[in-house]
Amino acid sequence: MNLQPKEKPVLLVALGGHAFMQRGEKGTISDQERNAKMICETLQTLVDREYNLVITHGNGPQVGNLLLLNESGDESVPKMPLDVLVAQTEGSLGYFLQQAMLNELRARHKHRYVVTVVTQVLVDPKDEAFKNPSKPVGPFLTRAEAEKRQQELDWKIAEDTAKRGWRRLVPSPRPTKVVQRHMIRDSAAAGHIVIACGGGGIPIIKKEDNSYEGVEAVIDKDFTSALLATEIEAEIFVILTEVPQVMIGFATPEQRPISAITSEQLNELYEAGEFPPGSMGPKVKAVIEFLDRGGKRAIITNPQTLEDALAGKGGTHIIGRC
Amino acid sequence: MNLQPKEKPVLLVALGGHAFMQRGEKGTISDQERNAKMICETLQTLVDREYNLVITHGNGPQVGNLLLLNESGDESVPKMPLDVLVAQTEGSLGYFLQQAMLNELRARHKHRYVVTVVTQVLVDPKDEAFKNPSKPVGPFLTRAEAEKRQQELDWKIAEDTAKRGWRRLVPSPRPTKVVQRHMIRDSAAAGHIVIACGGGGIPIIKKEDNSYEGVEAVIDKDFTSALLATEIEAEIFVILTEVPQVMIGFATPEQRPISAITSEQLNELYEAGEFPPGSMGPKVKAVIEFLDRGGKRAIITNPQTLEDALAGKGGTHIIGRC
Repeated sequence: MNLQPKEKPVLLVALGGHAFMQRGEKGTISDQERNAKMICETLQTLVDREYNLVITHGNGPQVGNLLLLNESGDESVPKMPLDVLVAQTEGSLGYFLQQAMLNELRARHKHRYVVTVVTQVLVDPKDEAFKNPSKPVGPFLTRAEAEKRQQELDWKIAEDTAKRGWRRLVPSPRPTKVVQRHMIRDSAAAGHIVIACGGGGIPIIKKEDNSYEGVEAVIDKDFTSALLATEIEAEIFVILTEVPQVMIGFATPEQRPISAITSEQLNELYEAGEFPPGSMGPKVKAVIEFLDRGGKRAIITNPQTLEDALAGKGGTHIIGRC
Repeated sequence: MNLQPKEKPVLLVALGGHAFMQRGEKGTISDQERNAKMICETLQTLVDREYNLVITHGNGPQVGNLLLLNESGDESVPKMPLDVLVAQTEGSLGYFLQQAMLNELRARHKHRYVVTVVTQVLVDPKDEAFKNPSKPVGPFLTRAEAEKRQQELDWKIAEDTAKRGWRRLVPSPRPTKVVQRHMIRDSAAAGHIVIACGGGGIPIIKKEDNSYEGVEAVIDKDFTSALLATEIEAEIFVILTEVPQVMIGFATPEQRPISAITSEQLNELYEAGEFPPGSMGPKVKAVIEFLDRGGKRAIITNPQTLEDALAGKGGTHIIGRC
């Protein structure tokens, strides 16, 4: 006889960095607090449905600001590498999110604990991304400024495709393991709302002597979220983005939304180049990987459509094997 | 019949911000990593003794650097208030510490999880400290610079006692509750090494509508550590500082160390003004408060003496009621 109560299913929801800072905003404290409140109001539908909840999030605009401060600030302050700046955003964005979530819960007289876990994520030092840094980060520079740093600091640089200036390129390796996965799983199983893997997680490698070391890289938060969803055996993996549904034939006369699709069908479209690499591509790929590893269901939608999507009336639903 | 294994006792150890950045160092990434490694080597004696371990830490030099970057950096980056900067240091210092701790454990083939919890700490909005900001933070400014900010940003300012310049003064209210105390206690009870309350915790108040809001203040990390030690029922509360023992008659010909003392005796010395307010005073007071609330034992010592102190051969031991 099993006297253990059945554990509630875990739902992992991945937020973009723009959940805190909308396009066109500067990211002041009141911008970020207002946006955190909005997203946490939206997420109450998940609390009401009594999922065990894990929240991950991006940090693009925020780590960009910290890079700019590091570049432009007083020279007496030692510059911190990218892994440390990611860790800083895990602290500040985790704080915004947990404060906003606690306030929504308190206003509704719901008693749930909320915790933010500073999360390290392993990447493979042999990942091809280290040979070919491709992710632009930090401020736009003049060509001369960028080339100076290329020489002095061994940066990889490239001109922005929209010609807004020159930027630093860093590797974006695949995540292989979330170091704090057991703690995250156990806390979620105990019913606590867990915020983890901010900014895709702090990228670290395992050295030959078996010790961990930070690396100057950023990990795509959708891939880390998908990995964590597998590691904690999430029942549902939700990616919140800026559009209500994934589109086929995006920006063509044949554009149409996908309401439901199998992982296999979605993969065929992905392989055929249907999804732009800079935006929907990684989200689609992350979802396919989660389902390939045994995940059951995933949803890609925007915050406004989340409640309808859970009711089966909106969003893009992707289905894995039974 | 009780089939539960007896829980191991919890030991809470509070590190100074200088555990990461020694006096005279600039706090480069290699400084902070080397210091984190040193302190985690020292803490292995606590792991070996099989305590359930909670680690708290200061952030003075680090939050000072972030304030300076905020002041001096590119104006397009919105300035973040002090509570958010504390949250950033909880991320980065938690990362340094958890990485160094995991590396020490891995080198010793010990299997323990390590987790850093982004921690909010409640303070009372009626705390007298808000009427009389007294804690200097951030960079030294010229008088003109300081007075400009006083007018524009409503800062409290004061000249440094050592005449190094003018600084901003912020309130240092007493902590009243650690929001994440249950999670910290449960994780420690499960045997995980928990890093929490970095920088004394992110200061927040409860507003009249029952919601939480961050405040521009800093909380003394020794008082927060003592409060958390009570909340999680720590068996032993250790404060690591720069000296091996607490002294009576400090810097006088009668100077002598205290090896063991009751909380009551220590309180008499404290009330008589034996301990300087800027350094040993708050540590002594924090320990007295922990013991007054029912704590059993506390130790004040430096990292070099920790192992001897645990063996009863060094440090200052303070004893509460039986």
